[in-house]
Amino acid sequence: MTITKLSADDIESLCVGATLLGTGGGGDPYIAKLVARQALEKHGPVDVITAADLPPDARVLTIAIIGAPTVILEKIPAGTEFVTAVEALSSYLGEPPAAIMPIEVGGLNTLLPIATAAEMGLPVLNADGMRRAFPQIEMTVFTLAGIPAGPMSVADEKGNLCVFETTSNQMAETLARTAVIQLGLANAISCYPMTAGQVAEHAIADSMTYCRDVGMMLEAVQRNEEGAWDRFLGETGSHRFFEGKIVDLDRRTTDGFARSTLVLQDLHGSDQVMRIEVQNENLIAYVDDVPTITTPNLICLLDHETYEPLTTEAIAYGNRCHVIGMPCAPEWKRDGVLDLVGPSAFGYDVDYVEMPS
Amino acid sequence: MTITKLSADDIESLCVGATLLGTGGGGDPYIAKLVARQALEKHGPVDVITAADLPPDARVLTIAIIGAPTVILEKIPAGTEFVTAVEALSSYLGEPPAAIMPIEVGGLNTLLPIATAAEMGLPVLNADGMRRAFPQIEMTVFTLAGIPAGPMSVADEKGNLCVFETTSNQMAETLARTAVIQLGLANAISCYPMTAGQVAEHAIADSMTYCRDVGMMLEAVQRNEEGAWDRFLGETGSHRFFEGKIVDLDRRTTDGFARSTLVLQDLHGSDQVMRIEVQNENLIAYVDDVPTITTPNLICLLDHETYEPLTTEAIAYGNRCHVIGMPCAPEWKRDGVLDLVGPSAFGYDVDYVEMPS
Repeated sequence: MTITKLSADDIESLCVGATLLGTGGGGDPYIAKLVARQALEKHGPVDVITAADLPPDARVLTIAIIGAPTVILEKIPAGTEFVTAVEALSSYLGEPPAAIMPIEVGGLNTLLPIATAAEMGLPVLNADGMRRAFPQIEMTVFTLAGIPAGPMSVADEKGNLCVFETTSNQMAETLARTAVIQLGLANAISCYPMTAGQVAEHAIADSMTYCRDVGMMLEAVQRNEEGAWDRFLGETGSHRFFEGKIVDLDRRTTDGFARSTLVLQDLHGSDQVMRIEVQNENLIAYVDDVPTITTPNLICLLDHETYEPLTTEAIAYGNRCHVIGMPCAPEWKRDGVLDLVGPSAFGYDVDYVEMPS
Repeated sequence: MTITKLSADDIESLCVGATLLGTGGGGDPYIAKLVARQALEKHGPVDVITAADLPPDARVLTIAIIGAPTVILEKIPAGTEFVTAVEALSSYLGEPPAAIMPIEVGGLNTLLPIATAAEMGLPVLNADGMRRAFPQIEMTVFTLAGIPAGPMSVADEKGNLCVFETTSNQMAETLARTAVIQLGLANAISCYPMTAGQVAEHAIADSMTYCRDVGMMLEAVQRNEEGAWDRFLGETGSHRFFEGKIVDLDRRTTDGFARSTLVLQDLHGSDQVMRIEVQNENLIAYVDDVPTITTPNLICLLDHETYEPLTTEAIAYGNRCHVIGMPCAPEWKRDGVLDLVGPSAFGYDVDYVEMPS
């Protein structure tokens, strides 16, 4: 059943699913829920629509938080910067938005667009550009479709504002990232201005419904319901690759990203070790140095006891986890995907690994 | 006699003066002359006006090249980016410009606005914000007057475009600089959008005339005219502090600036050594480690034989030079000047040194 309206009571399952699909990134779920709940309680429920509900030439603007998840956890969004970014882009384009759309799926980056839509009295689109989170702006199915990321706006909570129009989505990422490094690594970005017609043709549809459904299946696992784990794995096409304890965690914030390397030791006593490389999101999981799950497929960590999804910024030494691999959205399966979001796009000399069927 | 019109034949003295007052920076004079001559030959002479010639609410936009002089020498401006930057800012403001104004005085940064005005069919204002060159955007008398540098635009020759609105002129510099580092360190910037009324109140008036007059006096020196050197020093309030040969030159391009340290050995055989610290422009000259000329006063190097002004990017090991100190424009003499453009503003733990009268 698709989502048509979201109120403050509806965001729990959505947030669980979004955090899982954020594959480590996409922003902290606790902050996300606070932001969304406050906006929905203040402004009332938000209509969730599809691109077909709008005239084809209606203007759709996206909103997201950009920065390093580790910083976002400490420098909590003020809230005003998101509406500011959307309004700045809409003013630059000379056209008001008819709807707000998420760029990616993740705790904050699914719930923030809902909050922004509530504040602006606009509907939110049940769609996005990744159906997971990726650390860089150009890493969308929109880029594969040749849609420019610009004009785009970046705003901070103090009143600083940037607008960029670039010759490539890579340059859009570069300019936005360098600005964000100066603006505190937790800012608002509105980009990929599209018409509803473009969204209908190129976005990943129903990703919010998918998020909510995945979240509900995981909640059933969390409640320890009979068969829920197998159902969750089966319906999402996921596999559990490892059960381990984090025995090493090397964090660094470089070039505007939260990077880390996790090492997990097998919980069942074997000598097997899993290593996960992270750039905001989990990118590559190696078992005993053999690449086993690779981007664009999803590497998701769940707490071993509670089955809560674990984000990059929340992971700590000693955490016991399930590591699951989940296939990326089918919309990614097209020419150019590996150049854009495969291991080499992040600088790894690693071949893409197919998910087992 | 003030300047009222500029044609391709008028730029020689102007360029000599602008290069001298650029105090090492402001852009290469040879490229400057090529750019200005081409534009003036193609589009005809440009009217040079004062702010009082315009209605008080007329829009004035500035244009300059931003980057590292050493890079600008190799990555010659394409030309299109300057009109692009002005048009982008004017479109962002929703108002066309009535005139173009330089931000600073320097080889390129005096002649480029003339070329841009010619291309756009606009007059150019006989005024600027420094009457010398400084490496950072916030370093203007406009900042001292509380005028924001933004909204501002930065354009490259490929079609990349940035617009910034910031809470301080320091943040405007930071965001523009980080963008320019990504865009190749030789780009167009249009900033400090003002009304003609604001220009009349706050800009340094007649700086183009001053440039041309200083240039003519220096040309007389170059022609070895009787009394010309004393007249040049007397009229500009300058003093010759050193005659030396460059015996060490350490260049580095860091944080978006061309930095260097020059060491000159006394030409007359004494053990005296002058050291000059450079960030695009010459900032501090030490004689035997004693600060002798400091920003905001001008440190100008002239070739010892030809009396050509020497720019940061052109200086080479072995050059024999006169080093003169020249007092900055009287418009700088106000509260806050040393915090904004004194030695400490560039990170030097050096007190400001008054020019001898």
